[in-house]
Amino acid sequence: MDQAARAFENKLRSYASAVEERLDHLLGPEVRQEEIARPARLLEAMHYGALNGGKRLRPLLVAESTRLFGGYEDAALQVGCALECIHSYSLVHDDLPAMDDDDLRRGKPTVHIAYDYATAILAGDGLLTYAFDILASDQTDLPDSAKIALVLSLSRAAGIGGMAGGQALDLAAETEAPDEQGIVTLQAMKTGALIRFACEAGAIIAQRPEDDRRRLRRFGEIIGRAFQLADDLLDVTADAQSMGKATGKDAGKGKGTLVAMRGIAWATTELDRLVAEAKESLLPYGAAAEPLNEIAHFVATRKN
Amino acid sequence: MDQAARAFENKLRSYASAVEERLDHLLGPEVRQEEIARPARLLEAMHYGALNGGKRLRPLLVAESTRLFGGYEDAALQVGCALECIHSYSLVHDDLPAMDDDDLRRGKPTVHIAYDYATAILAGDGLLTYAFDILASDQTDLPDSAKIALVLSLSRAAGIGGMAGGQALDLAAETEAPDEQGIVTLQAMKTGALIRFACEAGAIIAQRPEDDRRRLRRFGEIIGRAFQLADDLLDVTADAQSMGKATGKDAGKGKGTLVAMRGIAWATTELDRLVAEAKESLLPYGAAAEPLNEIAHFVATRKN
Repeated sequence: MDQAARAFENKLRSYASAVEERLDHLLGPEVRQEEIARPARLLEAMHYGALNGGKRLRPLLVAESTRLFGGYEDAALQVGCALECIHSYSLVHDDLPAMDDDDLRRGKPTVHIAYDYATAILAGDGLLTYAFDILASDQTDLPDSAKIALVLSLSRAAGIGGMAGGQALDLAAETEAPDEQGIVTLQAMKTGALIRFACEAGAIIAQRPEDDRRRLRRFGEIIGRAFQLADDLLDVTADAQSMGKATGKDAGKGKGTLVAMRGIAWATTELDRLVAEAKESLLPYGAAAEPLNEIAHFVATRKN
Repeated sequence: MDQAARAFENKLRSYASAVEERLDHLLGPEVRQEEIARPARLLEAMHYGALNGGKRLRPLLVAESTRLFGGYEDAALQVGCALECIHSYSLVHDDLPAMDDDDLRRGKPTVHIAYDYATAILAGDGLLTYAFDILASDQTDLPDSAKIALVLSLSRAAGIGGMAGGQALDLAAETEAPDEQGIVTLQAMKTGALIRFACEAGAIIAQRPEDDRRRLRRFGEIIGRAFQLADDLLDVTADAQSMGKATGKDAGKGKGTLVAMRGIAWATTELDRLVAEAKESLLPYGAAAEPLNEIAHFVATRKN
């Protein structure tokens, strides 16, 4: 690993710690205004599902897209935690027996194994709901207009028109293989929508005009594609140990991926092209975009 | 049925039609800004789960608590639809095999029977997420400050500190019977929190001071208790046909209810007391509170 890559990994790890510390606080036993009580076991399962050793790439995207304009550091951390609640809920529900039926996630028992099926459903529901609580809370120091824009964008990224819809398409793909355009749409929804939101969030948090939102949305769309392509490539090339989960799984289920359709060589070239395109989309910001460009590079070249 | 009761039933039915028409529109195939696509089968399952023939009591509470202050009729309908998305998602998830395992709801197959297990999980997730989309959307004609107050109150009413937490307590109650205070807390969370929100919503929508919010929250707490007590009473006294679902089920599962602990006579008297207390909490509003008082009366005396 070269020095730049090592520096980036350190930055990612350090921000992940900040996210986990904040999530640990948010998912503590303290009962808030309008809440009646926090049942201990469900809260524990939510905490277990959210503090799962993830890389926290999405919160880092929120932080760096906000830093592009300056200020609002704590608000960006809060929004990153809200986003991570959504991402975690989706993992908890996707792992359920009726969905992808996974017993392990990052080498640890999934929530329905560590707790039970009903608790895993409820922990997912609780995390999903809590994301909007965090965005709206007084602890998130933003004007109401920015908060509402975040609620709207996040709910659309996570809902029927985004991540949840994408998971439905993914399940359908097990019985009827989608064509290439179908795969692109599925992936844009299932993983792309949240990553796009993470990038756009900075412009919303910093209350920038629509032009900035559009540019960051575009950047997010491109690195979302790169993220998924790298994932599909790793599924073919990496071993289970370095991924902390079963690999070769997509092929085993007969799920189509662009890598399976077009091959590894194409995918490698396409990843380079996407990183270049992502960088180009941020040219108007000059050198200030460097941290985001580093993330684009990392997303395309990651080894796990 | 006397004339007042018949008039109220007509009003309830007529408002339910308005809610269903709006939900039918909101859950249509039209893709909105920031959405990528609306997968047809999942959207259908969400529509099926939301347009399930419910009485729409909660949206009527939103409408009447708003009308107490005048104006905002369309916003109240939007908020009522958001609330109904939350209520519907909770029914879809509660009916799942891992939870209460119900095949029928209001005489129709539940979502996991009509579709499949994975689709029911996702339809619930989709409806829960969509509630916040509706609150934040441009179609809900309210200032951002009111929208954020609604997002905050609804997320707390629905989350770990409210409905989802209450469902966790309810599941735990199957293996370890709670004491009387435990039952009161469980019910205040599982069914009470959303009803309390429905009542408080009017004061938020009409942007009234904290005193009004507090009074309506109190009214909502009391009729939430009455609602659950009437439900537990019906579970003992009504037959399955008039309820459209299995009755005697709570007793069959050994779930404790206040009716089981204290008897039918006590419950009947307690219901009268709660209705009187609910009316008293709205005395400052004089005759304008009559429609809300009618709902309190209906909640306590309903036969299904």
